[in-house]
Amino acid sequence: MGEYIIAIDIGGSKVLCGILDRSGKILMRSRELTCVTGDPQAVIDQTERMVGEMKLAMGLWEQDILGIGVGVPGPLDYQAGIVEESPNLKWLKYPVREELSKRLGAKLLLDKDTNVAALGEYYYGCNCQCRHLIYITVSTGIGGGIIADRHLLHGQNGGGGEIGHMVVAPEGSQCGCGRRGCLEAMASGLAVAREANALIARGAGQRILASVCPGQPVSAREVAQAARQGDEEALGLIDRIGRYLGMGIANLVNIFNPERVVLGGGMALGLQDLLLPVIQNEVMNNVFSLHRRSLEIGMTRLGEDIVLAGCAAMVLHSPVAEN
Amino acid sequence: MGEYIIAIDIGGSKVLCGILDRSGKILMRSRELTCVTGDPQAVIDQTERMVGEMKLAMGLWEQDILGIGVGVPGPLDYQAGIVEESPNLKWLKYPVREELSKRLGAKLLLDKDTNVAALGEYYYGCNCQCRHLIYITVSTGIGGGIIADRHLLHGQNGGGGEIGHMVVAPEGSQCGCGRRGCLEAMASGLAVAREANALIARGAGQRILASVCPGQPVSAREVAQAARQGDEEALGLIDRIGRYLGMGIANLVNIFNPERVVLGGGMALGLQDLLLPVIQNEVMNNVFSLHRRSLEIGMTRLGEDIVLAGCAAMVLHSPVAEN
Repeated sequence: MGEYIIAIDIGGSKVLCGILDRSGKILMRSRELTCVTGDPQAVIDQTERMVGEMKLAMGLWEQDILGIGVGVPGPLDYQAGIVEESPNLKWLKYPVREELSKRLGAKLLLDKDTNVAALGEYYYGCNCQCRHLIYITVSTGIGGGIIADRHLLHGQNGGGGEIGHMVVAPEGSQCGCGRRGCLEAMASGLAVAREANALIARGAGQRILASVCPGQPVSAREVAQAARQGDEEALGLIDRIGRYLGMGIANLVNIFNPERVVLGGGMALGLQDLLLPVIQNEVMNNVFSLHRRSLEIGMTRLGEDIVLAGCAAMVLHSPVAEN
Repeated sequence: MGEYIIAIDIGGSKVLCGILDRSGKILMRSRELTCVTGDPQAVIDQTERMVGEMKLAMGLWEQDILGIGVGVPGPLDYQAGIVEESPNLKWLKYPVREELSKRLGAKLLLDKDTNVAALGEYYYGCNCQCRHLIYITVSTGIGGGIIADRHLLHGQNGGGGEIGHMVVAPEGSQCGCGRRGCLEAMASGLAVAREANALIARGAGQRILASVCPGQPVSAREVAQAARQGDEEALGLIDRIGRYLGMGIANLVNIFNPERVVLGGGMALGLQDLLLPVIQNEVMNNVFSLHRRSLEIGMTRLGEDIVLAGCAAMVLHSPVAEN
């Protein structure tokens, strides 16, 4: 039986591949910008090549591979292995599991990236035996993976965990999903950029504008930079974002009563010094005392590798992942 | 081994007791207004007496009893069997399981009433083998019980399912829990009464006022009566309430991807002809197509007996209930 796990994290901006051992340690890592041409096959070609190169570099044969884990953007029809719609990848009802299995072999387990990340955090992130965990990724969009009573929550079609599309501001901004005021529309990286641009457009936000490299769009990074220099407008913007996140997380804590809520994703990781205290404060003030008891809210320590770690967990603990 | 189940539903306004057989059929039922004196022992006394009278009437002895199931208001510390706080019952950190066990015996299983109701619906309500079910009670307050992948969702302390305290209107009315704009504050029976009173206070809502019996407070019942006579203000009020409920349920559907969402509770059952179409429309327009697929939203057919049915389910299928 093989000793190595191939892990693949396909996202709208990057493809991250890794080879891991049975302890979840990453032995090799390969990262490329996603080849988004409109033809899904280009991403499959790219992934197959990246995996082939890694296997070659490590001298691995088919029999050395224990299994392959893959994370892809949701919403994903989990049973069918079909990505319903990914605007970033330009995929629509794309049977990604079938297509990847043809290239990489049948020992392939695939799930939504945020679900895979939740498994990564559950098995490798926290060093604790918690039973109830909510993982939230905050980057361009907002997504989640939920472990309730040691089971990854898939729901009937694999659509469980779409926490970015909980409405937190009914009169708020239009979301890509069609609703108004979803958490994703109010508190994602896109929301920060939109709010910062709105400030600048009305002649404010000069400190934020000063942080932007010429020719580049404004993003959460520049807002954070201005905030760390004490800019009131930037601090105000991040405070609003943090309070929306806190409101959404408080809703989830009241619904799930978890032991841990863990944040990851580019924006959450990059702005954690500014965001986390606001979020923690907002949540702790807005849940029942029963739910606050031994609740921890923190950042993942797995960083960008959380989905790779989750791929290994998915392969090694497939009965949990399959539930 | 006993053949009979004793079921007890303790609420803020009524205590409902029943004796059921192994098929979940209610053989005898007893209902009284809850004896709320401020001393929790009064309710325990009342319950003990009601159960004793039923056993006597049916000629049952200790050895005839398979088990006792009890539903109590939440938030409940499930492991400890302690009701954290019930304003209606005037209970604060009351060890209800221990106190009831002293009187009725040790074969007693106890959970939050909405969780028990979810089990009732799961086992006796739908005649279907669904894996994922959300039960929502809409009466004076709003609560829920969630079955995810055949497991009742308790969370770490038993606080899972507090869906009434999801914020759907951040600038909305003050909720009893301390937050603003919770689903319970915007769409419960109390919210309908508050909105109707506000209409009347500003000289509108005359058709609603005309439905109120002299000396009685206005409630959802009078609003429904006016709405059924075509009153635009009453219809508008119910439409707003229904849309809040739909928004909250859409959030939950995106998070859980269930097969069924089932409504119960006095207000939902009493206003179902008016509320259900609004709710169904709002939900179906606000969830992903993946989540809409084979989703059913309906009313329970178990009516007020749903907690009694759940008590039987809890006793008969305790491994599921214990998870």
